[in-house]
Amino acid sequence: MKRYEQLAGNIADSIANGTLPPGAKLPSVRQTCASRGVNPSTVFQAYYLLEARGLVQARPRSGYYVATGATSVPEPDYSRPSGEQQDVEVSELVFQVLAHMRDRELAPLGSAFPDPSLFPLQRLAMAQSKAMRRLDPWRTVEHLSPGYPELRRQISLRYLATAFAIDSTELVVTNGAMEALNLSLEVVTRPGDLVAVESPTFYGALQALERLNLRAIEVPTHPRTGVDVAALAAILERHPVKACWFMPNFQNPLGSLMPDASKESLVRLLAERQIPLIEDDVYGELYFGMHKPRPAKAWDTQGLVLHCSSFSKTLAPGYRIGWVAGGRFAPAIARRKLMSSLTAAVPSQEALLLYLEQGGYDRHLRSLKGRLQGNQAVALRCIANHFPAGTRASPPEGGYFLWIELPASIDALELHRLALSQRVSSAPGHLFSADHRFKHHLRINFGQADPLELEAALKLLGRLSVSLV
Amino acid sequence: MKRYEQLAGNIADSIANGTLPPGAKLPSVRQTCASRGVNPSTVFQAYYLLEARGLVQARPRSGYYVATGATSVPEPDYSRPSGEQQDVEVSELVFQVLAHMRDRELAPLGSAFPDPSLFPLQRLAMAQSKAMRRLDPWRTVEHLSPGYPELRRQISLRYLATAFAIDSTELVVTNGAMEALNLSLEVVTRPGDLVAVESPTFYGALQALERLNLRAIEVPTHPRTGVDVAALAAILERHPVKACWFMPNFQNPLGSLMPDASKESLVRLLAERQIPLIEDDVYGELYFGMHKPRPAKAWDTQGLVLHCSSFSKTLAPGYRIGWVAGGRFAPAIARRKLMSSLTAAVPSQEALLLYLEQGGYDRHLRSLKGRLQGNQAVALRCIANHFPAGTRASPPEGGYFLWIELPASIDALELHRLALSQRVSSAPGHLFSADHRFKHHLRINFGQADPLELEAALKLLGRLSVSLV
Repeated sequence: MKRYEQLAGNIADSIANGTLPPGAKLPSVRQTCASRGVNPSTVFQAYYLLEARGLVQARPRSGYYVATGATSVPEPDYSRPSGEQQDVEVSELVFQVLAHMRDRELAPLGSAFPDPSLFPLQRLAMAQSKAMRRLDPWRTVEHLSPGYPELRRQISLRYLATAFAIDSTELVVTNGAMEALNLSLEVVTRPGDLVAVESPTFYGALQALERLNLRAIEVPTHPRTGVDVAALAAILERHPVKACWFMPNFQNPLGSLMPDASKESLVRLLAERQIPLIEDDVYGELYFGMHKPRPAKAWDTQGLVLHCSSFSKTLAPGYRIGWVAGGRFAPAIARRKLMSSLTAAVPSQEALLLYLEQGGYDRHLRSLKGRLQGNQAVALRCIANHFPAGTRASPPEGGYFLWIELPASIDALELHRLALSQRVSSAPGHLFSADHRFKHHLRINFGQADPLELEAALKLLGRLSVSLV
Repeated sequence: MKRYEQLAGNIADSIANGTLPPGAKLPSVRQTCASRGVNPSTVFQAYYLLEARGLVQARPRSGYYVATGATSVPEPDYSRPSGEQQDVEVSELVFQVLAHMRDRELAPLGSAFPDPSLFPLQRLAMAQSKAMRRLDPWRTVEHLSPGYPELRRQISLRYLATAFAIDSTELVVTNGAMEALNLSLEVVTRPGDLVAVESPTFYGALQALERLNLRAIEVPTHPRTGVDVAALAAILERHPVKACWFMPNFQNPLGSLMPDASKESLVRLLAERQIPLIEDDVYGELYFGMHKPRPAKAWDTQGLVLHCSSFSKTLAPGYRIGWVAGGRFAPAIARRKLMSSLTAAVPSQEALLLYLEQGGYDRHLRSLKGRLQGNQAVALRCIANHFPAGTRASPPEGGYFLWIELPASIDALELHRLALSQRVSSAPGHLFSADHRFKHHLRINFGQADPLELEAALKLLGRLSVSLV
């Protein structure tokens, strides 16, 4: 963390705990330089960052004051999918957007990953180096699927934080969550089956459905509270749904978080009909609140929930270590894994195992979440101040995505292309449904290492949006 | 390599180059101790190893002499598959046999991997450590499928040894060859399609067919020269074959090597009918002859051959790095890879890239092949001397598998179980066809680090076979 970010963090803490109440004047730049031993540009950057987050306001010729009220951006509309079964054909656009991740000249607001410099890659490399130099050669061939027993034990310990237990024998280690989700879908469906997904939906789910020749039906999904369980119940009455693929925690792209009561009734509804739930929970560790949200899996008494997650978005991008707690399907998933790619990479398993054993993951997560939450405030402030009137966005309680609903006259694809020409990427709403319905929506990634670069990119997006109204 | 193995290797070289002609007496143990500066037990072990390989013979009260003729074991029968289309259902047995790899108490003659201590795991770990400590964080997220460009360039250089070029843009890096083969099969077939396979067939191919709901038709395959192209042509006349999955080089389990002329006519035959060939070439680097055998891909002018290989059997087990040179299907494969598991693990790609750049792979391969070839001689000698009369086995010109045809009265499954109870694993022939036809056959893995342990395990298998005749 840079010095100005540290300073801004300290001041934000003082505002949060009331030491600096609304309307209070911040110390002058000169005072702060003297008391902190920093130079004026550091203080200016810190104050500027706090202003961008909406925590302080500058008054001309007077100084900086604690803001008296947060700027609020209205929530996006509740989704209203067609209610019909759909064939899935993944748009060329998904591959184009993913390809932009290779272009370092772009501000990566369209990326699916946080800035990789936010991760403890050096510590992981050291753990890997240590583990691989002392590796018993037989470990390279004897632990095929379901993966290292010791790593599965470490993963099962992570579940205890949400006060429910997963037996490590239920876990299968995979090449990231993407493989976990795909294997799960393979074992609970046959070609032609109908699968319920959220609206909007993570495009990776649509790709998986297409790959397996499955059909989709979209469920109304609230931007704050996620899947509408009553609407799902009505769909199940009328359609032969064979499986659900949902993200109850910090849904991609909405950021929605299903309340515990909804999760519980979702699991009960599906259990009555013996429909498996594939639960994508890759952002669950990135909660901003006091408590880690429980997965729907916590209410599963019948082994019908296949809970998928990974370390790719929280700790170790590129290591390709994910897992699924497969319930009654765990043995079938382990065999599918063996048949399709044998096992997860041994060096990656060794690195994560030793890193987790050494401790420090929770400390890293706290620091990462602090930065993401600060960035979210910057992003919301930018949307309030620089986007066209009528723009909506709901602030998620975790993760690093904002779902922005622009005025209906704006074509998000046109905005996306204009922004690319000015070196800012974004993920247009078109990606997030089988019928490309979200035409004036954008998903933006606020997981940047430098909040000022995030701000600059968002201001540009806002300016371009205004030009398109 | 142990000292006695070095000594045995030197003597074997002298026999091969004629310095020690057939019938010549080896120096006495005392002389050798003096001239080499080793102790008597080393010399005894070396002579014993040479005897096991059939290179020397002990004459009582006289000493050791260069053998006058190699013991020959007759070739197994030419396979005669049913010629019918078959549904594929993988036997429980495959999973049981794979599970035995976890039991270190067993002599692993049933394993699919050579002894992992034969690989330069320390050098790989050092390369990985160096590469990961200096890693640019953005490399963890920007190079998704088709994989690191620099690694694909290194892989394309390997093809030059067989005097044909693969453009690195045609290559997709995968989680081992198993994923490469599965992705290839996914892009060239649809559920219900018919796929031609060898007879006997690698069980992994049968598993892949089952996973994708494909049907199999088996092609007669010669234990020395591989797929019978004329028989295949006849099958193509009568059946709607949509793809072939063959291993022209050192087929698993036969060890057969298709002559260049057969490969060429195979590729021409399939091109006429526009049928894709999935070529599994994971053992091609393990040739014992002077020249690396060319893959069928070398004759492909239409982009119809999907050439799959990996480093898992030759250099880096557990790193899970394979690839496919996908011809006209390369873009579709790269997208499938992206959809199903995003990318190969970054630490594994980094390690192999730096290892290959540093050089040393060919030196390692020479040493590995020398040991495998020596072990093969040990194994053949054991079969000639300790197995029931009528046992057949064809010595492959590469790889580390022997396909043993026992007298028809022996049930290989019974032998397999008996041997397990005495701590020797094996792969019964039942695994290698959809109709479990090879009931008196065994595949044994001679890729052991210690040839004397290999000999002991084979002697036990021989003794048990004799008891079952």
